[in-house]
Amino acid sequence: MFNREMLTLGRQRSVIRELFSYGKQRKAEIGEENVFDFSIGAPAAPTPSSAQEELVRLLREVPSETLHTYTQAAGLFSAREAVAKSLSTQSGVPMSANLVYMTCGASASLAIVMTAILEKGDEVLVPCPYFPEYEVFISRAGGKLVPVATNSAFHLDLDAIERAITPKTRAMLINSPNNPTGAVYSAEELRALGQLLRKKSKEGPIFLLSDEPYRELTYGAPAASPLSFYDDTVVLYSFSKSVTLAGERIGYLAVSPRANGAETLFDAVCGAGRSLGYICAPALFQYAVPAFLKSSTDVEFYRTNRDLLYGALTDMGYACCPAEGAFYLFVKAPGGDAVRFSEYAKAHELLLVPSDSFGTKGYVRISYCVPKSVIEKSLPTFREIFSASF
Amino acid sequence: MFNREMLTLGRQRSVIRELFSYGKQRKAEIGEENVFDFSIGAPAAPTPSSAQEELVRLLREVPSETLHTYTQAAGLFSAREAVAKSLSTQSGVPMSANLVYMTCGASASLAIVMTAILEKGDEVLVPCPYFPEYEVFISRAGGKLVPVATNSAFHLDLDAIERAITPKTRAMLINSPNNPTGAVYSAEELRALGQLLRKKSKEGPIFLLSDEPYRELTYGAPAASPLSFYDDTVVLYSFSKSVTLAGERIGYLAVSPRANGAETLFDAVCGAGRSLGYICAPALFQYAVPAFLKSSTDVEFYRTNRDLLYGALTDMGYACCPAEGAFYLFVKAPGGDAVRFSEYAKAHELLLVPSDSFGTKGYVRISYCVPKSVIEKSLPTFREIFSASF
Repeated sequence: MFNREMLTLGRQRSVIRELFSYGKQRKAEIGEENVFDFSIGAPAAPTPSSAQEELVRLLREVPSETLHTYTQAAGLFSAREAVAKSLSTQSGVPMSANLVYMTCGASASLAIVMTAILEKGDEVLVPCPYFPEYEVFISRAGGKLVPVATNSAFHLDLDAIERAITPKTRAMLINSPNNPTGAVYSAEELRALGQLLRKKSKEGPIFLLSDEPYRELTYGAPAASPLSFYDDTVVLYSFSKSVTLAGERIGYLAVSPRANGAETLFDAVCGAGRSLGYICAPALFQYAVPAFLKSSTDVEFYRTNRDLLYGALTDMGYACCPAEGAFYLFVKAPGGDAVRFSEYAKAHELLLVPSDSFGTKGYVRISYCVPKSVIEKSLPTFREIFSASF
Repeated sequence: MFNREMLTLGRQRSVIRELFSYGKQRKAEIGEENVFDFSIGAPAAPTPSSAQEELVRLLREVPSETLHTYTQAAGLFSAREAVAKSLSTQSGVPMSANLVYMTCGASASLAIVMTAILEKGDEVLVPCPYFPEYEVFISRAGGKLVPVATNSAFHLDLDAIERAITPKTRAMLINSPNNPTGAVYSAEELRALGQLLRKKSKEGPIFLLSDEPYRELTYGAPAASPLSFYDDTVVLYSFSKSVTLAGERIGYLAVSPRANGAETLFDAVCGAGRSLGYICAPALFQYAVPAFLKSSTDVEFYRTNRDLLYGALTDMGYACCPAEGAFYLFVKAPGGDAVRFSEYAKAHELLLVPSDSFGTKGYVRISYCVPKSVIEKSLPTFREIFSASF
């Protein structure tokens, strides 16, 4: 009676969203302070006040029927220009406002680009572990997600990538800083990836799709841009994490002007946005994009959390990589069974996401984008379940 | 190299959007006051100040990391409850917040519901003329738009509907008040439609999808709700027109609790929203939904425009129905060729949308949601092209 695929997708909710909903319900039952919710990547650092003030200023100063009206489908030109300028500075590639498409966040960017480039049966390489929704967007567009192993530090394994490439490989999707591992790919790593993809693009380009919502959240050097190292690159971005606007749905998709058929690709992007029901990104937030680009979230807020949690967990005996960016720790599940361990943790009011749906078994993801006090109060429980569970 | 269907869709831009873009460019060239742009349905009445003030209050008073964070995929429960209550009052049907899904506007509602219910080859009946994007959403979901004739006043023709129903008919999509004709279906009309659909639903329900962005914009009696007359109804709504928020992308989809498999349908809706990349509707605007429901746009603003334009055009000899609602006049093209007439009008800086892409030939759509002064200044040109062109 209904579309079977959609019904399955609606009923098999994402593990992250399921745990997040459980946490909300559990907090209502036993009190906010008694649940340690590390399930979702919803930033706890406040929105920068400059961004917040810009939103108020726009509401006060721009006539409402101008401010709130339709923008062009690709977005306000002022927003697209500001994005192009900012990307040019980061990458050294002269980006064009005409190839920037404003979107309702990174998920919209992903759904749109997959719909724009994939034909039935096309393959998209994705390093493991990966954000579970990637599979949803790729398969809805008729494509196939091909998981590719990473090295022991969750960085790129070029041999594995080379082996995975087939004549059907249409794109590779990367995410640095990475959710869920916190890995940040170095310039050298991206240069080598670019060389490999160029070598393998003889029969038509393999597009490099770079999902960068955590771009600004690094604890060492700034994240390198794949734009600098490979022409057939499309950047997917969201202001969700960098300006704490996850629920407002504002982001973009930017095609490198050096990409094969860049303008044709952009036309296909416009068609895909239209077919998926996106009229434009929310106008108020589009107007504020130049201000967002000048704002920055409090990276120290997340660094403090990372240092506290990483230090404490490794002291207790947990095994994990020190996150180089983003706001996740990817920790080996004691005993090796991530589902069993996270269920055990859940029974102790500690909400951790098992790694199975990320395409890698045996880990849990801990989102440390929470108030520091939540981490502090949770540590005795982390200690208790480490030793008690096995 | 790219998805062919998306490329075609991106290149064949909507006639409305194309004309709207042309208008913006033309205004820049010869001055705002010298172009009479009746192309797009972007409201010119200001956003009600109560709605505007609520947005500022939320930004000032709610902690930013709470205000701007992810909501549940289906939306904030407070918004869903307010919508359910408002629909219950209008329709007399006890609607449930659990069956309300907040969306990024009516186009998102349409794309989502089509994706949720259609399987390949399913048919959707749509009375002519119809909003051109309906075809995009139905065909992307694998379905087929089946145009159905209306009567001479653009109201429902039950015989034509009955003849068009086949075993593949999965849904009927209606839009009252109507874009582009301004027709508003009466309670009696909707009751008769309900009876027919019930009679024809023997082999599984035919869903009635009611696209209602113009619900509050009527110049006579309030618009009747199909919910009151047919159980298998899904309401699609947007606050774009009623609160002048077209660019902000806030609306909803509501399933009647009396529909066959209502909860299953809602699960499929959740799956469809997820697969199309919608994480949630913009959070700030969701918080303001209870205030939006209490606000109302200035219907008199549009009534004044309608009376002025309808009176003047019919005096000049143009033939059209007096719009009962929405903010469009659907006018017979002098000479009979809508494309030729609209091109001629365009050469005189008057932007009217030819009806061909609405599934009906020989008319132009005039969007009178513009400042009154635009109508006043345009009248000499309307007069000139009526007599001069043929």
